[in-house]
Amino acid sequence: MTEAVIDLNADLGEGFGRWRLTDDEALLSVVTSANVACGFHAGDPVTMRRVCELAAERGVRIGAQVSYRDLAGFGRRAMDVPPDELAAEVAYQIGALEVFARAAGAAVSYVKPHGALYNRTVYDTAQAAAVVAGVRLAGGLPVLGLPGSRLLAAAEEAGLRAVREAFADRAYTAAGTLVPRGEPGAVVEAADTVVSRSVRLARDGEVTALTGESVAVGARSLCVHGDTPGAADLAARIRSALERAGLRVAAFA
Amino acid sequence: MTEAVIDLNADLGEGFGRWRLTDDEALLSVVTSANVACGFHAGDPVTMRRVCELAAERGVRIGAQVSYRDLAGFGRRAMDVPPDELAAEVAYQIGALEVFARAAGAAVSYVKPHGALYNRTVYDTAQAAAVVAGVRLAGGLPVLGLPGSRLLAAAEEAGLRAVREAFADRAYTAAGTLVPRGEPGAVVEAADTVVSRSVRLARDGEVTALTGESVAVGARSLCVHGDTPGAADLAARIRSALERAGLRVAAFA
Amino acid sequence: MTEAVIDLNADLGEGFGRWRLTDDEALLSVVTSANVACGFHAGDPVTMRRVCELAAERGVRIGAQVSYRDLAGFGRRAMDVPPDELAAEVAYQIGALEVFARAAGAAVSYVKPHGALYNRTVYDTAQAAAVVAGVRLAGGLPVLGLPGSRLLAAAEEAGLRAVREAFADRAYTAAGTLVPRGEPGAVVEAADTVVSRSVRLARDGEVTALTGESVAVGARSLCVHGDTPGAADLAARIRSALERAGLRVAAFA
Amino acid sequence: MTEAVIDLNADLGEGFGRWRLTDDEALLSVVTSANVACGFHAGDPVTMRRVCELAAERGVRIGAQVSYRDLAGFGRRAMDVPPDELAAEVAYQIGALEVFARAAGAAVSYVKPHGALYNRTVYDTAQAAAVVAGVRLAGGLPVLGLPGSRLLAAAEEAGLRAVREAFADRAYTAAGTLVPRGEPGAVVEAADTVVSRSVRLARDGEVTALTGESVAVGARSLCVHGDTPGAADLAARIRSALERAGLRVAAFA
Repeated sequence: MTEAVIDLNADLGEGFGRWRLTDDEALLSVVTSANVACGFHAGDPVTMRRVCELAAERGVRIGAQVSYRDLAGFGRRAMDVPPDELAAEVAYQIGALEVFARAAGAAVSYVKPHGALYNRTVYDTAQAAAVVAGVRLAGGLPVLGLPGSRLLAAAEEAGLRAVREAFADRAYTAAGTLVPRGEPGAVVEAADTVVSRSVRLARDGEVTALTGESVAVGARSLCVHGDTPGAADLAARIRSALERAGLRVAAFA
Repeated sequence: MTEAVIDLNADLGEGFGRWRLTDDEALLSVVTSANVACGFHAGDPVTMRRVCELAAERGVRIGAQVSYRDLAGFGRRAMDVPPDELAAEVAYQIGALEVFARAAGAAVSYVKPHGALYNRTVYDTAQAAAVVAGVRLAGGLPVLGLPGSRLLAAAEEAGLRAVREAFADRAYTAAGTLVPRGEPGAVVEAADTVVSRSVRLARDGEVTALTGESVAVGARSLCVHGDTPGAADLAARIRSALERAGLRVAAFA
Repeated sequence: MTEAVIDLNADLGEGFGRWRLTDDEALLSVVTSANVACGFHAGDPVTMRRVCELAAERGVRIGAQVSYRDLAGFGRRAMDVPPDELAAEVAYQIGALEVFARAAGAAVSYVKPHGALYNRTVYDTAQAAAVVAGVRLAGGLPVLGLPGSRLLAAAEEAGLRAVREAFADRAYTAAGTLVPRGEPGAVVEAADTVVSRSVRLARDGEVTALTGESVAVGARSLCVHGDTPGAADLAARIRSALERAGLRVAAFA
Repeated sequence: MTEAVIDLNADLGEGFGRWRLTDDEALLSVVTSANVACGFHAGDPVTMRRVCELAAERGVRIGAQVSYRDLAGFGRRAMDVPPDELAAEVAYQIGALEVFARAAGAAVSYVKPHGALYNRTVYDTAQAAAVVAGVRLAGGLPVLGLPGSRLLAAAEEAGLRAVREAFADRAYTAAGTLVPRGEPGAVVEAADTVVSRSVRLARDGEVTALTGESVAVGARSLCVHGDTPGAADLAARIRSALERAGLRVAAFA
């Protein structure tokens, strides 16, 4: 009988210069995978270096959180970037992060798109392929994304490892897709509920949809959000609950 | 008896998105080392990729032309960047370029600062050390710069290879330093003179100063400028003249 | 009997820092309206100032060529910018240009979106409304755009003057819309044809569609392109032909 | 007998997109002059608009907080910007802010340089003149700065109103200049001391230097910092203390 294993990932290093957003130090004590901002939506070189050093010290895996080039919009505004530009921009970001991961004695272990690029590559085949092309330019790495997304399909077709993640604080439809932000009930606010959903997602691979049904959501990783007040505390509660439930919390990469 | 060897380096890929500045394709047929802009003063990811591919095809060595973060000023405005920021910004740029060099089957073989950062690190010990710290973060690479500069001194102290370059189209003082741009006669315009100075610099390691004296300027590389009309033609004339003079034109890295 | 009047507009000041694209000086001797880049896709403050000074000297009207914030993509990548952000970004650009127009003894006389924002606001009602909201924030100005576009409809609804323009070097469908770039025949290359189409558009308000029909295209302004080699020469030929045909070439604003 | 009057100014709107730094709403209930970031070191258009609206509602004067173009460094890295570029960049920022001030029924009433530009123009005559040239390009406005600075001298020479400010939370030398940040004791941390120094500066025009002497520091405005935790509370305490001491707190513009 195999032990159930789950990864916890969070977006880190999402400040820029003078601005801070995430409590990187606290989150790095909890998560097993750090999605590090690479400078296009957030993430200055000093922060990238520091987060890589802390992650390496604590054995947290480092992932490249690649984005559209959009500091002003924090990468949340979808852009019609031609595929060759998008692929090169993705590769550029991965390369920039690699230097800091390597200097810290670690490596970039996976890639996860951020914000609008994450959402767009759920359904946009051309942009999904472009992101994967960028990952391959950078040597080929596992890609972390939404189950059923074009992105993960493109990664698999390209021979890359496609890693599925789930969101304990987001509502799901009966079809197993995320209820879009902005719709009523899209975000699960109550911390207790987020914790119990995390355990069920990790242990049983299922979640209760917004419409009441149980839905299967197979995922090797849970995404915990880092940019809200109390984010690190909630993440720590989730991790404790997972471990109490007999799950092993460990990186996928 | 050893054959005299000289490298020809040029700044390449200095466009950004819609804008072009250098005739990369023509120059890559002439030079042996390409200082590739890495996105901070110029150099978008698509161009970086293309220049790396062309350079790799032709056996031209790829160098990271690192800069202050200043697209609006093309990296020509000196900045008081704190050392830890400067080091991390330099490493970031090297890493971003590495991904394209590697994808092209090559590697980043050296680092050369651009514009104001080049000029500042001639005399600014702290910034010179910061650039070298950035190069070491990125794994350690040869540094190309001005003979007598703080930059080359810092590189040597750090155990990196320090490679000296000369400028056939710039006037020298009797002390062997460059006459600052803006002073009368600082730039040698006549193509024939640039060609003959190139040969003398490469073969004899000397140049006639603006004040008439012969000055020793030992250099393993000659910098040819790529951003002027006819730059590629002039570079080709220089290379032909060097070869006719019995020099071997070959990369230092 | 009224004399036929036509405006000639061109995109100007589309460099950034070290990079140049348009021959601003030559074009300002020909056109009657200058769409000046405002810094978001191109257009640094020094260039904006110089173009405004030249335009004011020559009596050329100054328009704000507003764009998505996208230097790397030259404003050619459509972006899902929320309406309040887009409106504020448009107003910001207009204000920035106004200072230079005013310093030159002139004023910003109209607004024309650039690139992807121009194309998007042909059909995107929300973004068209947001651009118009931005123009109103800036005090309200005439809006130059494509006949039939959502942008011009939104401008009219808001009580702004909506000014229609035509393109002599672009193919039209039988419905009077532009054949999308990328489709065969979308761009009219032959200079003679562009000149004769210009006269027919200006004098008769019609053009031959790609499919052979005559199409009515009422326009108060003709857009001549400034970013191609020989652009200023072609613009001068168009202006001469218009004047020989008895049209008065004069700004709309 | 004239009533003593003092202005309270603070840096506001110093976020960018997703990032926030200053509690604009709270500070706008306290200060009489708002130095609004204009997009070069901080300050996105949506924030600029909102701050202008709030300021106008509350009768707070709006000033343009102009900066070097340096989002990554928050405008804290001095730059060797050529005078014509600096002047145009200053004018650009003022114009961009004007549109939002005007839309809110107000106007830009003064200009204050930010960060490294503030510090540089204390002693750099050329940059001080360039900032003033930019202010004049934008029509001419009062300039807020450090007593004895080149900036205020240049403003006066240009016929602009030069307004002097003091810092209750910064240590002064016996000569009346600021003790540079980084030196021991440069920043006054204790809130009670900051409050009492504020009253003495405003009422008596003097302060105790770090070396113990009383120093005359004539100032029409006190700068309160907005980017520290509790900044708004401290500002409110200062204002109350000033009013209890019989001073009238009112804008200079």
